[in-house]
Amino acid sequence: MEAAITESGGAPRSVADLGEWGVIAALAARMPAGPLTLVGIGDDAAVVGAPSGSVVAAVDLLLEGRHFLRSWSSAYDVGVKAAARGLADIAAMGAVPTALLVALAAPGTLPASWALDLADGLAFEAGRAGAGVVGGDTARADSVLLSVTALGDLAGRPPVRRSGAAPGEVVAVAGPLGYSAAGYALLQAGVPALHELAAAHRRPAPPYEAGPEAALLGATAMIDVSDGLLADLGHVATASGVLINVEDPGLALGGPLPEAAALVLAAGPSSSRTSSADSPASLALNWALTGGEDHSLVATFPPATALPPRWRVIGAVHEGHGVTVDGRPYEGPAGWEHFR
Amino acid sequence: MEAAITESGGAPRSVADLGEWGVIAALAARMPAGPLTLVGIGDDAAVVGAPSGSVVAAVDLLLEGRHFLRSWSSAYDVGVKAAARGLADIAAMGAVPTALLVALAAPGTLPASWALDLADGLAFEAGRAGAGVVGGDTARADSVLLSVTALGDLAGRPPVRRSGAAPGEVVAVAGPLGYSAAGYALLQAGVPALHELAAAHRRPAPPYEAGPEAALLGATAMIDVSDGLLADLGHVATASGVLINVEDPGLALGGPLPEAAALVLAAGPSSSRTSSADSPASLALNWALTGGEDHSLVATFPPATALPPRWRVIGAVHEGHGVTVDGRPYEGPAGWEHFR
Repeated sequence: MEAAITESGGAPRSVADLGEWGVIAALAARMPAGPLTLVGIGDDAAVVGAPSGSVVAAVDLLLEGRHFLRSWSSAYDVGVKAAARGLADIAAMGAVPTALLVALAAPGTLPASWALDLADGLAFEAGRAGAGVVGGDTARADSVLLSVTALGDLAGRPPVRRSGAAPGEVVAVAGPLGYSAAGYALLQAGVPALHELAAAHRRPAPPYEAGPEAALLGATAMIDVSDGLLADLGHVATASGVLINVEDPGLALGGPLPEAAALVLAAGPSSSRTSSADSPASLALNWALTGGEDHSLVATFPPATALPPRWRVIGAVHEGHGVTVDGRPYEGPAGWEHFR
Repeated sequence: MEAAITESGGAPRSVADLGEWGVIAALAARMPAGPLTLVGIGDDAAVVGAPSGSVVAAVDLLLEGRHFLRSWSSAYDVGVKAAARGLADIAAMGAVPTALLVALAAPGTLPASWALDLADGLAFEAGRAGAGVVGGDTARADSVLLSVTALGDLAGRPPVRRSGAAPGEVVAVAGPLGYSAAGYALLQAGVPALHELAAAHRRPAPPYEAGPEAALLGATAMIDVSDGLLADLGHVATASGVLINVEDPGLALGGPLPEAAALVLAAGPSSSRTSSADSPASLALNWALTGGEDHSLVATFPPATALPPRWRVIGAVHEGHGVTVDGRPYEGPAGWEHFR
């Protein structure tokens, strides 16, 4: 299928040069098929195995200028991020990802190499999760936008919903907190982009296998951290009718966040996320509590659960409602909401 | 959930007034649950029954200015069209639609009533197909865009792919051809919008149940007419390695197309779709052969198949490759391609 990219005497420069079918063929050639794919790219619809007799499905939008900037993130990074957002939703139900469908709208002037690098990023992250890329759609638009649908299978287990947390249980997280927000702040502050946290912003790496693991361990509720820890725990608290208290005051210590916070503060107050923080410690904690897009998994477990090391206990479930930090409401921007 | 729309002392005017959660709650309250929905809107992902042990899945983009104009189509119409595009893909595999996931990006200034009317249109068409609306995503964008993912179940049958057509078989279509294109031309020509074909452009009504029916009848290949009859038959011919000849010269006669063509020609040559046509008959035929977006179903069947009345035989499968009309290549725009 690579022939489509070069057949008319030299490498085309844009997706308009390739044409719709050329774009689809070039993208399709880069995608993993996936072990459960029965009908992949190229028909009216895909057919994917659903051995449990049900399918887990989620859709996410990724818009240029809103969720990514082409000047900050490579096409490969955007592909990784788009896939990770959807696949993390599947893992957060306790399911194993099986497939992605990817719809891409772009200007006709988009470099063909950008679309192909995007496909490589999507393929990498889908492959990391064990999922195939089985279908999609293309359209022309003034800016780049992606819609990613992720599918998964529960392997015979019930889904882990947001609504099952009960008082007395522990709250534990798998994966980093605040890394993506810190990386965003570093990029915004102009700190050299080689920093590991800038990479975490560009390419989140959710611990997909921790989702089914949590389900097997008896997790009673689970969510992926896409809006920010407190906001996402708020969804669990509301759905479960409980109070969740984040207890670990050292949540943001010991990792790279304090150093990054010092770098950002030294560069001057350039964003609303930093302007209210008066010390590296408070800025780092704010990232850990309110930064989204790491797509780590946070879950509640019965108190006696023996948790593997990657699950770090960060709080507990109580009678009541809402989310507190060390017993008090957290002062600061608590999450992310679109439209406002 | 309706309370979310009016709770802050009077009806909000825009989706920004509602906020993301208000928009989601208001939309969710309007959506059909669907008989196979196990987990619907409100968790990280939906869970939908897949009794066949596999799931059929397709995604479609619908962009303002590209696939619809807010000045020509009501929000309700856009919802119907968005749902129909995805659901028709499921039917074209011979499957029964089970669920939709809908991602909506819109300006914060979008009237809240527009979003709610959109939801009503989505809900109507999903209900007509027997599918639930089980999940989605929202984001802010400069114009309205929708991504619709449709899921379906094969009821134990193998999927009807594009690749199974064989010489000697008949080609039959269920549903109208060219109606949407004719309606688009009528709207573009300023002919009063009450015309039934304008309604067909705004609200396609694919014959979903004809998809599983065709599978039961032994259809060897099937596709929905989204790009235009000749273009879509071209996909079947290529995938099957055959020649398809459209034989019925009266394809566009007997219905409303000739009268519409006369109205459009009388209004003057206002679009590229009409400029090459020199008579109502040739314009009507062009619509029927190249007009997309009706989402009718076209399938190939073994020659002895007793077809119910809604399946109209329009051609035959032969050795060779490509698509012909009465044995000759069709002269004219043959379909629709993005990016170019």
